[in-house]
Amino acid sequence: MDWHRHIASATHRIADHVVRTPTLTVQSFGLAYPVELKLEQLQHTGSFKPRGAFNTLLSQPVPEAGVVAASGGNHGAAVAYAARSLGHAAKIFVPEIAGETKIALIRATGAELEVVPGTYANALEAAQDWEMQTGAMQIHAYDAPATVAGQGTLFAEWESQGLEADTVLVAVGGGGLIAGALGWLQGRRKVIAVEPATACALKSALMAGHPTNVEVGGIAANALGARRIGEICFELAQDMRAPSVIVPDAAIEAAQHALWRDHRLLVEPAGATALAALMSGAYLPTRGEKVAVLLCGGNIDPEPLSDPATQLDVSFT
Amino acid sequence: MDWHRHIASATHRIADHVVRTPTLTVQSFGLAYPVELKLEQLQHTGSFKPRGAFNTLLSQPVPEAGVVAASGGNHGAAVAYAARSLGHAAKIFVPEIAGETKIALIRATGAELEVVPGTYANALEAAQDWEMQTGAMQIHAYDAPATVAGQGTLFAEWESQGLEADTVLVAVGGGGLIAGALGWLQGRRKVIAVEPATACALKSALMAGHPTNVEVGGIAANALGARRIGEICFELAQDMRAPSVIVPDAAIEAAQHALWRDHRLLVEPAGATALAALMSGAYLPTRGEKVAVLLCGGNIDPEPLSDPATQLDVSFT
Repeated sequence: MDWHRHIASATHRIADHVVRTPTLTVQSFGLAYPVELKLEQLQHTGSFKPRGAFNTLLSQPVPEAGVVAASGGNHGAAVAYAARSLGHAAKIFVPEIAGETKIALIRATGAELEVVPGTYANALEAAQDWEMQTGAMQIHAYDAPATVAGQGTLFAEWESQGLEADTVLVAVGGGGLIAGALGWLQGRRKVIAVEPATACALKSALMAGHPTNVEVGGIAANALGARRIGEICFELAQDMRAPSVIVPDAAIEAAQHALWRDHRLLVEPAGATALAALMSGAYLPTRGEKVAVLLCGGNIDPEPLSDPATQLDVSFT
Repeated sequence: MDWHRHIASATHRIADHVVRTPTLTVQSFGLAYPVELKLEQLQHTGSFKPRGAFNTLLSQPVPEAGVVAASGGNHGAAVAYAARSLGHAAKIFVPEIAGETKIALIRATGAELEVVPGTYANALEAAQDWEMQTGAMQIHAYDAPATVAGQGTLFAEWESQGLEADTVLVAVGGGGLIAGALGWLQGRRKVIAVEPATACALKSALMAGHPTNVEVGGIAANALGARRIGEICFELAQDMRAPSVIVPDAAIEAAQHALWRDHRLLVEPAGATALAALMSGAYLPTRGEKVAVLLCGGNIDPEPLSDPATQLDVSFT
């Protein structure tokens, strides 16, 4: 698969629909070296997910029945937002663990929402049933080429903004985002996968030599809690020997606090997971190695400003 | 006074000590036009204030007794941070209305802190007494040339980042920041002062034809609640006919909510005040007029993550 070409096309396709999120370089977090950051939590709906959703909806015909997605929350909000802004119906299945904030976010887009008992896997099953019954188009959260190509646009954009890093750290759940990173960066820069100890589907797959089911839990579960890594991600990570480093939940929390303390950036646990690898020493750069950290999501639960006015603005002015 | 030259020197002087804060352009907040944003709340200590503090400390000899400042909170935190990072003692006087978050922020730098009953004016009086007694160097929060030149670096930096706006909206308290904006931009771009209805020292001065004492209160009082506009600001604003527009507290709150809802940016009321002028219609751009909004501070009270780990990191690595 010519990922570079697919991601370049996707970049052009979604340009008018996504935020070109800012980057900056800081020397903070108690680290002895500078870190490049990209603030993707400023993206529409608070995570990188609209990139894949818009790319999917804009690269193929959408049936009358609209779209359907299963999601721990962020993907669902992104599909709902993208569908609404392009005039399609959307049905979103979320597991209970998505949490009130993400459920409210999806509901605010006007999408039809169903909360499913259990985890992401249960929501996915319900979404597949809905697809069969209605003919709606399924948008997979991470294991589909159009989703991966959309997420890859983030790294094309970052390079166009002057990314200098030798090494880019990315949090991994189901693997759509890191597959996009590997597909675009293609060994030109090192890509480090960072997974919570409580949800490490990629690490488990790399050790087993094939995707395998894992138990998921912990503070980032509603964003990174995929039970099984995507095939696309697994193949890219295996081919390119991308390492996965593991961080404990306490390190993720410490990184969340440090982002607020040093730069007034408020992110969800998944959004702080890549930084946690540096702060905890799970990943130690060599002398002179330039590092970059992606902040991938900001849908913190509970919301910091609790008021009806905080709901997602769905008027497309 | 050759402000352009002073600000250019200050830019060079403080470059290694401040964050080059990111910018982005968004079409959000229910507005029908794009807005350029600069995220100055990501600056050290959560506001633009370290620019003036570092410029002051680096442009003149600092006495053995160190520095002293009076502050609603943000200036005090900035002076404490800058003094500590350059190895000077700091004594900070804050009024009670500074609030727990800002007081904790100053305390975390290791500065000597005194909480003074009353408002900013009372804290300033106490700081002046301390200056007389000890010979410490007073760093005024807004009405001193080195402070104004330091704040002006923000606009030099913004232009170097590709600022396109015809018009820049800036929140005003005592006027140090907008004086820096006027001093740098010098009529090349329109500068709009935005003040809360509950704390409008510049508007009152412009109407009276001279600085005059005003009553202050409202949700942004601990950052914008100067009882009297600075002389430097007043003269620049009068000479350049810079207009001041007034926004109600409810509009400031609505802008705070919109920043979180649309882009996961969490700012204090003062940080949302300039945006409030656009959202409320207090300032209406003409057709095709390009606008920019400065987000100047993020020290929201209470802190969104309440934990001892959120305290300011004062290890200068």
